[in-house]
Amino acid sequence: MTGRVYLDWNATTPLRAEARAAMVAAMEVLGNPSSVHAEGRAAKALMEKARGQVAAALGAEGADIVFTSGATEAAALACAGRGLFCADIEHEAVSAWCEPSLVVDGLGRVMVSDPAQTALQLANSETGVMQDLPEGLAVSDLTQGFGKVPLAFNWLGCAMGLVSAHKLGGPKGIGALVIRRGLDVAAQLKGGGQEMGRRAGTENLMGIAGFGAAAEAAARDLADGVWARVAELRNILEQALSAPGDGSICAGLGAARLPNTLNLITPGWKGETQVMQMDLAGFAVSAGSACSSGKVRESRVLRAMGFDGVQAASAIRISLGPDTKRDDVLRFADVWSAARAKRLKAGA
Amino acid sequence: MTGRVYLDWNATTPLRAEARAAMVAAMEVLGNPSSVHAEGRAAKALMEKARGQVAAALGAEGADIVFTSGATEAAALACAGRGLFCADIEHEAVSAWCEPSLVVDGLGRVMVSDPAQTALQLANSETGVMQDLPEGLAVSDLTQGFGKVPLAFNWLGCAMGLVSAHKLGGPKGIGALVIRRGLDVAAQLKGGGQEMGRRAGTENLMGIAGFGAAAEAAARDLADGVWARVAELRNILEQALSAPGDGSICAGLGAARLPNTLNLITPGWKGETQVMQMDLAGFAVSAGSACSSGKVRESRVLRAMGFDGVQAASAIRISLGPDTKRDDVLRFADVWSAARAKRLKAGA
Repeated sequence: MTGRVYLDWNATTPLRAEARAAMVAAMEVLGNPSSVHAEGRAAKALMEKARGQVAAALGAEGADIVFTSGATEAAALACAGRGLFCADIEHEAVSAWCEPSLVVDGLGRVMVSDPAQTALQLANSETGVMQDLPEGLAVSDLTQGFGKVPLAFNWLGCAMGLVSAHKLGGPKGIGALVIRRGLDVAAQLKGGGQEMGRRAGTENLMGIAGFGAAAEAAARDLADGVWARVAELRNILEQALSAPGDGSICAGLGAARLPNTLNLITPGWKGETQVMQMDLAGFAVSAGSACSSGKVRESRVLRAMGFDGVQAASAIRISLGPDTKRDDVLRFADVWSAARAKRLKAGA
Repeated sequence: MTGRVYLDWNATTPLRAEARAAMVAAMEVLGNPSSVHAEGRAAKALMEKARGQVAAALGAEGADIVFTSGATEAAALACAGRGLFCADIEHEAVSAWCEPSLVVDGLGRVMVSDPAQTALQLANSETGVMQDLPEGLAVSDLTQGFGKVPLAFNWLGCAMGLVSAHKLGGPKGIGALVIRRGLDVAAQLKGGGQEMGRRAGTENLMGIAGFGAAAEAAARDLADGVWARVAELRNILEQALSAPGDGSICAGLGAARLPNTLNLITPGWKGETQVMQMDLAGFAVSAGSACSSGKVRESRVLRAMGFDGVQAASAIRISLGPDTKRDDVLRFADVWSAARAKRLKAGA
């Protein structure tokens, strides 16, 4: 799509060259990883290499990595039937299994009382707000943080973590549950004994290979300071869009946030309308998280932070990535500001 | 793996060129299918194209295709919590959720009394034996039949079917539950509202694209008579390996079978040993189904057919595919027969 500017990296990311190469190579690997013959062993070796890459990138050496079809399946594996508590800012894949009773402050930070019975995300997909994870936490959704901020699972103090490949330049449809060594989960997909009995089904070999390569590349980018540059662009955008007195609010401003995420509330200008106007102008942004963008009109996350219904329906999420250019951000700021000015002039 | 002969197509298949091309093209599609902007809509269009391809190949026009991470997940979605009956020849991904109480005859055919409460496979992965599916069947595992035998879901008389891409030249880690229009299933993966609320999680876009292309190509191959040629090779192999009086038994011989599958029991010569010997000699075959080959020593399927423990532990499955050459089959017959002769001479 020539000339388009993609500012929706929290929804999904372009496939990294390293992931692409690993997947194309995996296309030549014929075997089923469960087969004992040479073809099967080659497939298994590819899978175990990727498992090591993901573990290393996550700082989860020695922990168990259970490959799943994505963070949603990992969430079900980690949370279902455990009676965990969460806040209403969790992704629906987590909150579907939890009691969403925890209190959230105006900056999106969650008060945890019983970490061992709590699921708490590392970073929010809509606002980018990061949580200070308490020691002894049951489950943390690391999906949005993994690859964007320094992160070592082994030092986070949580028992289980959820990650997804397509948020860091890997393919869609593959993720993992990370489990501290010595803990276990009951399989939800039963059948063959794959993943040490924790997750049956022939493994998504190409996806796994792509995930491993993407995780490794993402960790290298992070170490190289790529996201510090992204944060600069985000801050430029933030200043350009939310000058004092013009009525727009940056949700979560003042809390620790992901380097790439800006959630901008312009009360009365519906998020959906903004997304469509910007789409027509050549920019991809989002209102709420992608998974629910077809369904939900006001943001559950913003409501939990204390914004009213009008405000929560008037937000857009702009999320940048390593490929985002300064010019992209400046052009977006111009186009969006012009649209807002036109709207104000029309008295809408 | 130069010079190797792959005769384990029921475990998994090489990726078809069409699937490969579709997946490489999908790598360039950036969006999340749930996003409403142009990038998201392009991803969604790719997914819906593939859904149409799978439906057409399956003869399931008008039925609902719910993409899953494979047939194992589709089995859980179709069977969990329903108290269905099955026979002990079903794949473990199905039997894990059912009461395996149905009777199997010596040729591997299942007696069904209450179709509406039964899961019954179309074809067995180990023996290739095909079932005559009764009208009104609740669930059928179509995994091994899809792409190998003429099949129209809409005429099968079953309410739900399970299929997998990697058995017909698509990628591993993607499959589908096919549901007769008007029926429904309760989502097991909760969260985003993907797949009309039946299966949450960002979709495996590349896998889905590869599945669609592979299904279309498989249907074309089938119409072109490719599997009739495979059946000839299987029959040549069968005659070469099981001459009367030499003590080997072809399981399911006499029943309707898949065109590509040969299950050969040589009592007293362990299947695992045969697999390893053949592997060293350059041939990939299997003992039992790939998913369980690391776990199970005697075949549950063969036991259900009335074979004793020694017989059920002495089987190999040889499964051919469209790429299999006459010479592959003849060489295998030579090498295997020589190994058996050597074994007999040694008095083992």
